[in-house]
Amino acid sequence: MNCNVPTDIVFSFTGFAHRGGRTDTHHDGWGIAFFEGAGVRHFVDHQAAVASPIAELIKRYPIKSLNVVAHIRKATQGQVALENCHPFVREMWGRYWVFAHNGDLKAFDPVLDGPFRPVGNTDSERAFCFLLQQLRERFGNQHPGLPALRAAIADLVAVIARHGTFNMMLSDGTAMFAHCSTKLCYIVRRYPFTAASLADEDLSVDFSQVTTPDDRVAIIVTTPLTTNEQWTEFAPGELKVFVDGLPQT
Amino acid sequence: MNCNVPTDIVFSFTGFAHRGGRTDTHHDGWGIAFFEGAGVRHFVDHQAAVASPIAELIKRYPIKSLNVVAHIRKATQGQVALENCHPFVREMWGRYWVFAHNGDLKAFDPVLDGPFRPVGNTDSERAFCFLLQQLRERFGNQHPGLPALRAAIADLVAVIARHGTFNMMLSDGTAMFAHCSTKLCYIVRRYPFTAASLADEDLSVDFSQVTTPDDRVAIIVTTPLTTNEQWTEFAPGELKVFVDGLPQT
Repeated sequence: MNCNVPTDIVFSFTGFAHRGGRTDTHHDGWGIAFFEGAGVRHFVDHQAAVASPIAELIKRYPIKSLNVVAHIRKATQGQVALENCHPFVREMWGRYWVFAHNGDLKAFDPVLDGPFRPVGNTDSERAFCFLLQQLRERFGNQHPGLPALRAAIADLVAVIARHGTFNMMLSDGTAMFAHCSTKLCYIVRRYPFTAASLADEDLSVDFSQVTTPDDRVAIIVTTPLTTNEQWTEFAPGELKVFVDGLPQT
Repeated sequence: MNCNVPTDIVFSFTGFAHRGGRTDTHHDGWGIAFFEGAGVRHFVDHQAAVASPIAELIKRYPIKSLNVVAHIRKATQGQVALENCHPFVREMWGRYWVFAHNGDLKAFDPVLDGPFRPVGNTDSERAFCFLLQQLRERFGNQHPGLPALRAAIADLVAVIARHGTFNMMLSDGTAMFAHCSTKLCYIVRRYPFTAASLADEDLSVDFSQVTTPDDRVAIIVTTPLTTNEQWTEFAPGELKVFVDGLPQT
């Protein structure tokens, strides 16, 4: 989720969490990270999301955030363990970076000799460390600004995606980078808001009752969360950047 | 907390959390980090611990861990904000490091030109980044083993403590480093276990009912949590290292 005003993710997370063991086979852990100012609230659990007391808390406790990354895991590489749960968090350039991956990378074993090293043993965390290492190598000790960063990330994700499926989300707390390898779609909710019905649970929300006309909320997912809204598909190989709830051209 | 078998911290946290706004003046946020294998569960909140729904969850949900670092904040430097809540987490050498500080450092403004940079604006996060930067400078890309690490940390905390009060905890998930500048004490609970009564709430636990004879749990705090146990005070300037629930000689 990427927004222009702090927004809670309770509605979307409720449907999403059902995929962690109930309506889908992604039951090997889950996680979510909320930026709040420069800080991050990071929740991970190696239990299935449908059985997790922490997931229950998040469904009830409306944390407001401009950028949220959530993930439900089906283990392909790396055992079921806390250190292998997405999203992963690292600090670079005095800000936190949050990363999640859907897919599977084959024979992806880059040399990681910089300051970013995997703690677990997933292809995903290796990809994240590689991305940060290459960005730091290219730009040194300073955030280069969004246009240069976007161009560099576009190059790097293309290199990684040669190794397999690499649908991914990356945020530094101001922008949300989303790369589609095989499947990703998004929606921008904005004025005039309407009602939305979850695909994974019998639940609807009328967003016009809980928003102001200036609010803008982009939701990016692998599979649409609602049945009565128009989701836009990414093209394979496409990287989009969302800022303030809008995809940047 | 540092233990030899995964132990929950519900009892100690219940008393500790009361200091965040009820029995003490530390009401500017709180946080706790649990190692679970190589992974970390990290909870921070800029609300007072007594009012926090996440603190409520932790009191009810027994997360078992070998190393836990918890902190309740009284803001001295840096505003009340999520990014300024302890403990702080960084990755180095392929493992997570967790750090919390009690005290106040004056004119501590080291050059941080390595890969560890503060996200918030506390003296504490600066000290943590400085520590990691110096360790990485000294030992390069490899964990040097406990004896060398301990000697290096002893040097570094002495340098930092020249700037003010620096009671601190640092863990890499295997050992707990605790430095006393003005106040710190510890207890090792082991067989034969007895009952303990919290200082901050009317609550007792008979540990002999919830432990096995092999369990060992060290609790290190600024102020004793219980009224009927014998806590051992650190000497000012002392660094202790706890492994498997025991202070190392």
